[in-house]
Amino acid sequence: MGTKYSIGLDLGTNSVRALIVDAATGEEIAESVWDYVRGEGGVVLDPRDPHLARQDPADWVQGVEACVRQALQEAASHDGFSPQDVIGMGVDTTGSTPLPVDRAGEPLAFHDEFRGNPNALAWLWKDHTGHAEAEEITEAASRRRPHYLAKCGGKYSSEWLWSKALHCLRVAPELFDAAHTWVEMADWIPALLTGTTHADALKRCVCAAGHKAMFNPAWGGYPDEEFVGSLDDRLAGLRRTLPDRAYSIADTAGTLTPEWAQKLGLPAGIPVAMGAIDAHLGGVGSGIGPGMLVKTIGTSTCDMMVWPLDEDLPDIPGLCGIVPESILPGYYGLEAGQSAVGDIYNWFVNTMRPGGAVEGSHEALTEQAAQLRPGQSGLLGLDWHNGNRTVLADQRLTGVLVGMTLHTTPAEIYRSLIESTAFGARVIMGRFEEYGLTVGRVVNCGGISVKNPLVMQVHADIVGRTMEVTRSAQACALGAAMAGAVVAGSAAGGYDNFDQAIDAMTGVLERKYVPDPDSAKVYERLYGLYKRLHDIYGAKDRTDNLYDLMKEVQTIRDEARG
Amino acid sequence: MGTKYSIGLDLGTNSVRALIVDAATGEEIAESVWDYVRGEGGVVLDPRDPHLARQDPADWVQGVEACVRQALQEAASHDGFSPQDVIGMGVDTTGSTPLPVDRAGEPLAFHDEFRGNPNALAWLWKDHTGHAEAEEITEAASRRRPHYLAKCGGKYSSEWLWSKALHCLRVAPELFDAAHTWVEMADWIPALLTGTTHADALKRCVCAAGHKAMFNPAWGGYPDEEFVGSLDDRLAGLRRTLPDRAYSIADTAGTLTPEWAQKLGLPAGIPVAMGAIDAHLGGVGSGIGPGMLVKTIGTSTCDMMVWPLDEDLPDIPGLCGIVPESILPGYYGLEAGQSAVGDIYNWFVNTMRPGGAVEGSHEALTEQAAQLRPGQSGLLGLDWHNGNRTVLADQRLTGVLVGMTLHTTPAEIYRSLIESTAFGARVIMGRFEEYGLTVGRVVNCGGISVKNPLVMQVHADIVGRTMEVTRSAQACALGAAMAGAVVAGSAAGGYDNFDQAIDAMTGVLERKYVPDPDSAKVYERLYGLYKRLHDIYGAKDRTDNLYDLMKEVQTIRDEARG
Repeated sequence: MGTKYSIGLDLGTNSVRALIVDAATGEEIAESVWDYVRGEGGVVLDPRDPHLARQDPADWVQGVEACVRQALQEAASHDGFSPQDVIGMGVDTTGSTPLPVDRAGEPLAFHDEFRGNPNALAWLWKDHTGHAEAEEITEAASRRRPHYLAKCGGKYSSEWLWSKALHCLRVAPELFDAAHTWVEMADWIPALLTGTTHADALKRCVCAAGHKAMFNPAWGGYPDEEFVGSLDDRLAGLRRTLPDRAYSIADTAGTLTPEWAQKLGLPAGIPVAMGAIDAHLGGVGSGIGPGMLVKTIGTSTCDMMVWPLDEDLPDIPGLCGIVPESILPGYYGLEAGQSAVGDIYNWFVNTMRPGGAVEGSHEALTEQAAQLRPGQSGLLGLDWHNGNRTVLADQRLTGVLVGMTLHTTPAEIYRSLIESTAFGARVIMGRFEEYGLTVGRVVNCGGISVKNPLVMQVHADIVGRTMEVTRSAQACALGAAMAGAVVAGSAAGGYDNFDQAIDAMTGVLERKYVPDPDSAKVYERLYGLYKRLHDIYGAKDRTDNLYDLMKEVQTIRDEARG
Repeated sequence: MGTKYSIGLDLGTNSVRALIVDAATGEEIAESVWDYVRGEGGVVLDPRDPHLARQDPADWVQGVEACVRQALQEAASHDGFSPQDVIGMGVDTTGSTPLPVDRAGEPLAFHDEFRGNPNALAWLWKDHTGHAEAEEITEAASRRRPHYLAKCGGKYSSEWLWSKALHCLRVAPELFDAAHTWVEMADWIPALLTGTTHADALKRCVCAAGHKAMFNPAWGGYPDEEFVGSLDDRLAGLRRTLPDRAYSIADTAGTLTPEWAQKLGLPAGIPVAMGAIDAHLGGVGSGIGPGMLVKTIGTSTCDMMVWPLDEDLPDIPGLCGIVPESILPGYYGLEAGQSAVGDIYNWFVNTMRPGGAVEGSHEALTEQAAQLRPGQSGLLGLDWHNGNRTVLADQRLTGVLVGMTLHTTPAEIYRSLIESTAFGARVIMGRFEEYGLTVGRVVNCGGISVKNPLVMQVHADIVGRTMEVTRSAQACALGAAMAGAVVAGSAAGGYDNFDQAIDAMTGVLERKYVPDPDSAKVYERLYGLYKRLHDIYGAKDRTDNLYDLMKEVQTIRDEARG
């Protein structure tokens, strides 16, 4: 048998990417990116409502085709490659990014009557229009179904399916009624490629269902109809369209239809794995396993661990989700995360624009920030510019910056923003360990982990652990391709399970970021102060006085300046 | 008797100004400005020490001559003006800006051996190198002379004479030893013009002595030698060079020497009034009297009230100073202030430079900020970028900004910086009123009060009072010229007292800023939250929990957006 290949499709916030990998080694032989053309960089916004963020599924359809063709064209120059040697495909997408569809699985956005209606589009993961509904769901669940909340961090998020559907029902009832059901993007794309979008055929992945829609086999699947109906009668109608079963990435969504095979230039009939949320497949592409924390650091972070299904696992307060087989078959998937990381750096560069475009670029600010010693900025901040996902699970929290003087520079603020996100990361690791999940290794993936050594070193110094970086620059797409190889099976040149695929196809870069003991000492003191800010703004009943806090930050600054 | 004139000299942080006014009406017939040429805009900095800010007295000597000659030249075109009709002069300067001098009153900065030594220069008001010494003085006074502290807000500031001299003694003992004494800029300039700089002749003004050096007739003048000596033996030496008496602006420093008369082109022998700190003479130039708060709004603010000498006045915690006749003869002068106001706006524009030079100008940001409704930014900040002078009297406090999201714009931050300074202003007014000093009118002076209507309107809405603006754009220089007219006396075409001078020479602009009731309502809510931030960061024993604070700010924002 000659070399076989698998394709990973990664549908992000701003673009879609196709990655063609050697199924035996994980080597990436071709890659292409197609930027969405609708909205602002693929995101439809509303200037009157900062909570709104939508996406047009037409971008996905157009992007998948353009992108795969482009990747195949690139791969053609690779010695011995032929599209006929592609044995499977996998898909990862953003999430929770649900969209209302009709019975055939056609997005309402494609119906003439709803064209231009933002409520008919996909409700992007970072859409927070349903924050009031999220509180309502949390409140209802805490009274009637507390066990639902125990698996999703004690709070149901405005980013998730039920909040979005309930909000839609309230603000656009006619549109809600016109929908047969709501589908996660991660389910809809594989269904599209395999001709299984119809309500009777559509499969739902446990990843999005479990982490975003309170699906759990422990209580028989999605939240029960009585509970959902107590929020709104019509929501119970949506509940009735949802199946009792969900699938892991070891399952196929179906096989590539002749129509899509022709569009893409691939063999019809190859298996397409169940889709999953990007970060989770990034965990797989980073080689996740017990004792390893995988951090996807991008605009936000997803912090993942797994835990054997046959071992006891307590509920862990503040985690966004604990779901059987949501990341890796055979393991509980545990997901935590920070609502904004790269987005905070981007906000500073793109919206604040200190000094204008050249002086205020990421490169220029990073270079200057790297010259600063830990503590030298005299600044301490809370990284809550997009709320706090873990451990506070509170979207109504906001960013804080303490310590500004008349001498504070943009580079100092930039560095303090980086530090604040690393403090946020440390809070999450602390929570895992408090509940017995020892963090033996930390493997990072996502753009920032390869592009910004300063961010990585600050993380190492602040969390006090070596930061490793996954070998693939496209870990999510690689994970998707690995799923394609697993559903293809060993007989076709793939694998029979993920243990094998991980061993063969993943690894880390040689360059590791080791904590510097002197820096770690300074950051230890600052972390104590960060934690006090964190608690006084974020915890309901934690009273404190911050009289000494500003002074302590200044003392650390003065010592850092030497 | 034909029209008579008086000259006000105003020596600021970056420039010196000469104002020639009609003594009968206060009409300003000529004005000239000379920018300092040494240091950065007149301020000598140390890149390694952000606390350091010095000024070269050579700039003063050169600037006074250049500036007066220039003003006289300009006045020459005024109908009927002749330099012979100038009947007196007055001087205002920054303070506390003391400088070390020899026995003859020559600055050590002019001695060859100390040339280029920043410690030999004048220690500018905003120099905070003596912050540790300020704490030491406060600590010593609280144990041994608590009554000293009661008149200066409970804390001795790092901006003031004794902190600076003590710090100099520690870091540059040889220079300290070479000095015969230290003189305030406000005393040194009139002494220079009247040939009275020599230790045997030099008079000290009660304004700087009282507000910056703990001088008070109640305890016989400057702090006693035993107390000063307990800080350091050598400081007692400095104490011995200080006189028992200090003078008000109704007194003359002396008469213009023939040498300076020739240099300036003025008649020799005209009286020069005792100098005073700029803001205080700005109070006079704004027509200060009982029941009126005069706010000088510039880089920082000075908030002044007066209270009849023959009525009882309690100690008021947090005020920078309560000194008999320091502002207006016949009254206690009460001084409060904010350590940075315009400086905070300038920091944002000049150091943060959002969007670069054009987009991030004061004009562009003000225009955008003016479009925002109160509360709409979702931001709330503490205006402590240069510490807090009143009511916390704590230079180690720093700026805070709460409420940033990924959508926060530079204009929103700019507006919130303005709002935070107005909240700070309200705290000060509240403190005056708590102690029985009713604020009947608020008259503003200083560049910002005429240049930025948005700042004025936000102040009106936040403090809930009409903001009036003094008629003269150069109230400090006008006040200095008024002092010149008073020391000249009515016989020479001036006045016998300040009541007469104020009636004749001052007034307010027609344009007044009246609080908008709707805005005031929103700001009332935000002020409650500001006060909580203020207390938790600034008051030693005030515990609180801020869990609801961010949410309340967001709620106000959402309501403001409508």
